[in-house]
Amino acid sequence: MSTDGGLHVGIFVFDEAEELDVVGPFEVLAAWAEHSDIKPHVNTFSRDGGGVRLAKGMRLVPARSADDVGPLHLLLYPGGWGTRTMLADHRHLEWLRYMRAQTPIVASVCTGALVLAAAGLLSGRPATTHRDHYDELATIDPSIVVDTEARFVDDGDVVTSAGVSAGIDMALHLVARLESPDVARAIKRAIQYEPNSPI
Amino acid sequence: MSTDGGLHVGIFVFDEAEELDVVGPFEVLAAWAEHSDIKPHVNTFSRDGGGVRLAKGMRLVPARSADDVGPLHLLLYPGGWGTRTMLADHRHLEWLRYMRAQTPIVASVCTGALVLAAAGLLSGRPATTHRDHYDELATIDPSIVVDTEARFVDDGDVVTSAGVSAGIDMALHLVARLESPDVARAIKRAIQYEPNSPI
Repeated sequence: MSTDGGLHVGIFVFDEAEELDVVGPFEVLAAWAEHSDIKPHVNTFSRDGGGVRLAKGMRLVPARSADDVGPLHLLLYPGGWGTRTMLADHRHLEWLRYMRAQTPIVASVCTGALVLAAAGLLSGRPATTHRDHYDELATIDPSIVVDTEARFVDDGDVVTSAGVSAGIDMALHLVARLESPDVARAIKRAIQYEPNSPI
Repeated sequence: MSTDGGLHVGIFVFDEAEELDVVGPFEVLAAWAEHSDIKPHVNTFSRDGGGVRLAKGMRLVPARSADDVGPLHLLLYPGGWGTRTMLADHRHLEWLRYMRAQTPIVASVCTGALVLAAAGLLSGRPATTHRDHYDELATIDPSIVVDTEARFVDDGDVVTSAGVSAGIDMALHLVARLESPDVARAIKRAIQYEPNSPI
């Protein structure tokens, strides 16, 4: 796949996807364009291009539909309660396998990994998810090597992160891997990502 | 102000507000409802209730307009490039002073502090903002005591945070203060906020 026209990132959104699962990585990856020579284009997209209502009620209007999102270098799949509907939708899982076959990297945040697992994309691979859902991940596909320690697991063409806010760390890692640690550090500085939880 | 009907949080959104400034605190504060006895209601609102296009292109449809958001216990003001338009809008600054007079806590994320400053709300007070904008904050109102070390500054009825991702830490602090550290820790666990930047 060529990156002549810039590197294309698509963040899939759906009803009841978790807000920060979507926007944490979006913020990092969209900030990337401001610090990069490789011109990443970052778009959200929903199945039909229509607006979605996220897990805690926020309404988001995506930039694209699945039909017009075009070839991607990186497909990001968030988690949230809406994954329950998606992982039971055989047509959707078929679409996901189709996307997987032509997308160099598929990455999930939180329970997004459950949908990847249901589509068979994590078979025999190391992966992680939100810590409350390790058993569920292993039940969907017992061949998955569930990593219960990692903030994210990079298995090359498939990358999975732990719960919700872990998507920010995974996104910074993806920038460091796809461009350089220096560019990832510039983004980290721009979003002042020096977490210091008060509790 | 009574909290009998639950505690009301309003997150103001506007064109070119920064995505994570909005959604970081939203995620924490909306998760609060799932872990609390005091029933916080968290809504986004825009000036006219219409959709907004955030700083990196994400389109969000708020739940309310400024006219129908109702009395708030906590008003949260995000940063982003759109603050430049807001801080030059005298009608908006007048509205902000009106809201301040009847809202127990006004909190800003990142360059949201510049708008609070332009409205005169930070006069003679300690405050912070994104680290690239300390000078701008002091220029808008030289009486502000700019804290260049803090992740967030709690000055009682006015709370300001550092850049972008610092809004997450400030929101956790506000939950700890308004309810309890235990509830804040439950939210932290739910969103798996154990940051571990890879770079």
